[in-house]
Amino acid sequence: MQDPLQSLATIMIPAMEKEMRLVLENGGERIDPFYGMMHYHMGWVDHKFGRLSAKSGKRIRPLLCLSVTQAAGGEWPTAIPGAASIELLHNFTLIHDDIQDASPTRRGRATLWKIWGANQAINSGDAMFAVAHIAMSRLMERGVPGETVVTCLRRLDETCVVLTIGQYVDMSFENQQTVTVDEYLSMIDGKTAALLAYSAELGARVAGCQTDVINHYAAFGRDLGLAFQVRDDILGIWGDELLIGKSAATDIVTRKKSLPVLFGLSQSAELRELYTQDASDEPFVKQVIQILDNVKAREFAENYEEQHAQSALDHLAAAGGQGAAGEALYQLSDMLLNRQA
Amino acid sequence: MQDPLQSLATIMIPAMEKEMRLVLENGGERIDPFYGMMHYHMGWVDHKFGRLSAKSGKRIRPLLCLSVTQAAGGEWPTAIPGAASIELLHNFTLIHDDIQDASPTRRGRATLWKIWGANQAINSGDAMFAVAHIAMSRLMERGVPGETVVTCLRRLDETCVVLTIGQYVDMSFENQQTVTVDEYLSMIDGKTAALLAYSAELGARVAGCQTDVINHYAAFGRDLGLAFQVRDDILGIWGDELLIGKSAATDIVTRKKSLPVLFGLSQSAELRELYTQDASDEPFVKQVIQILDNVKAREFAENYEEQHAQSALDHLAAAGGQGAAGEALYQLSDMLLNRQA
Repeated sequence: MQDPLQSLATIMIPAMEKEMRLVLENGGERIDPFYGMMHYHMGWVDHKFGRLSAKSGKRIRPLLCLSVTQAAGGEWPTAIPGAASIELLHNFTLIHDDIQDASPTRRGRATLWKIWGANQAINSGDAMFAVAHIAMSRLMERGVPGETVVTCLRRLDETCVVLTIGQYVDMSFENQQTVTVDEYLSMIDGKTAALLAYSAELGARVAGCQTDVINHYAAFGRDLGLAFQVRDDILGIWGDELLIGKSAATDIVTRKKSLPVLFGLSQSAELRELYTQDASDEPFVKQVIQILDNVKAREFAENYEEQHAQSALDHLAAAGGQGAAGEALYQLSDMLLNRQA
Repeated sequence: MQDPLQSLATIMIPAMEKEMRLVLENGGERIDPFYGMMHYHMGWVDHKFGRLSAKSGKRIRPLLCLSVTQAAGGEWPTAIPGAASIELLHNFTLIHDDIQDASPTRRGRATLWKIWGANQAINSGDAMFAVAHIAMSRLMERGVPGETVVTCLRRLDETCVVLTIGQYVDMSFENQQTVTVDEYLSMIDGKTAALLAYSAELGARVAGCQTDVINHYAAFGRDLGLAFQVRDDILGIWGDELLIGKSAATDIVTRKKSLPVLFGLSQSAELRELYTQDASDEPFVKQVIQILDNVKAREFAENYEEQHAQSALDHLAAAGGQGAAGEALYQLSDMLLNRQA
């Protein structure tokens, strides 16, 4: 097998998609507007509920979960309901995030709230949250013991609380004059890292691992998430415009509070002064990047990223995953950690 | 025991409140804004997070759940986590309902979104939804078998899907020219009856009842909910103003689509014409009531109410509850069904 990740993804993702459709299709009878709105968000139908094959997300979380189950000595199909649950949960958070951020588009399509209004979108998100739980409970039907399923569900909801804390902190930033580096790191820990940590943890729980192995997989997922997010922040300023498909300066123009910027603001009074201005032209962007380079903001962020990338790989090694799925986990890490776009 | 319901409520409700605080207090260390917003909604603190004893809801759902467990041969304290879960879930729906209805106040206090904005309120509701699940999973710690807990959780989420369908239908009414009596009844089946049905069902599941008994309790709760809601509709037009504390005409002035009105609209072209007008003065209200009386809208609603009230009592009898808790269930039914306000 030349490419374990690709080979596994090719069979795992369609199986997971099938499971999501099963719990979201209400017996498959008809797509009324209630289920239709959720199907629209998933990219399965257009806004008139006609069949569609829109670009879906990358399905990183379910792939992580299923690969861990297999690498840790379980059978990956056992974990399919859990992987589907995580992906549905992730999509519930996106539906509500889009309302909160007032985002008009996602993956090139109008967001749910933009078409059906915020009230229906709140309700669709709530419904998808409930469906995500129903998906998880189907682990029972794959022979996972009842007590383990309860633990998986409980950890899912504890993770949701962490996600909502991250979202709370993120939204609070808008009303804050200054956001510290520590506040930012605690925010991404909740918003990005917690669900990746849980994805890996769940895979290990379904495989029936011991607590220390479960903890290594969870820590692996968390560090991966933190490093991934900070890489995103770096690419948002210094990324190759051609590769990332948008102006690298976007994060500066929009005054996004990302790690390099927050570090820069903490170090440079000049940058703090500059960021109070309305400017968004090229000289402004160049000046900001110059200051960030001067205070070594990129090095600071890269150092943080590398520490967590290394820690992720250490935990993965300690977890001791085996076989093609074990290799796929290294490939997945490499893909997320070393991306240029 | 002269008053079984009062005696049981006096011990059950504080025990359930204690459980809710336990899962909502995050170790009890400090009330930061994240937990503080949820505590505010529960009436535990004011908007500056100072201690408060605000009027709480009537806690009918947990009381129903705990009484069924006891009446069905279980020990009510076993069901406390389930009762707390239901009450938290109910409150999650209220937080989101208040945003969707743009309601500025609830129980005499500003709503959560009114103080912290819709975005934070969406997030607080999501958090409370997750916490409601965590509460339910604590049934394990009271000795309920894992498989039963998974079933209770799954039924909780299936109920949530029904609730969100009811909410979807209710919100869709705003854009509909006509709402039929059947559409309305299916809406209240979701919005009001489903959670009462689940409350009674859960009590029976925790008590370890057989399927037929569980089904009788669920049907009892559902019929109770339907009769209760229609009674509410009747009181909203013909209730005693002094008893219900608001003008009985409110539902007519606000053009609320309640059962008697929808029945009236289906029967009378004159009423349909009248309801297109902007009027809200006394002659208008009198004219509407006159038409409703002419087409026997009150009798229609009362007939529906009585059928479901009788069916509720039949199911309760068939369920065969025993002891003081069994009597309390009849009292609770009587209280909900025969109220004058």
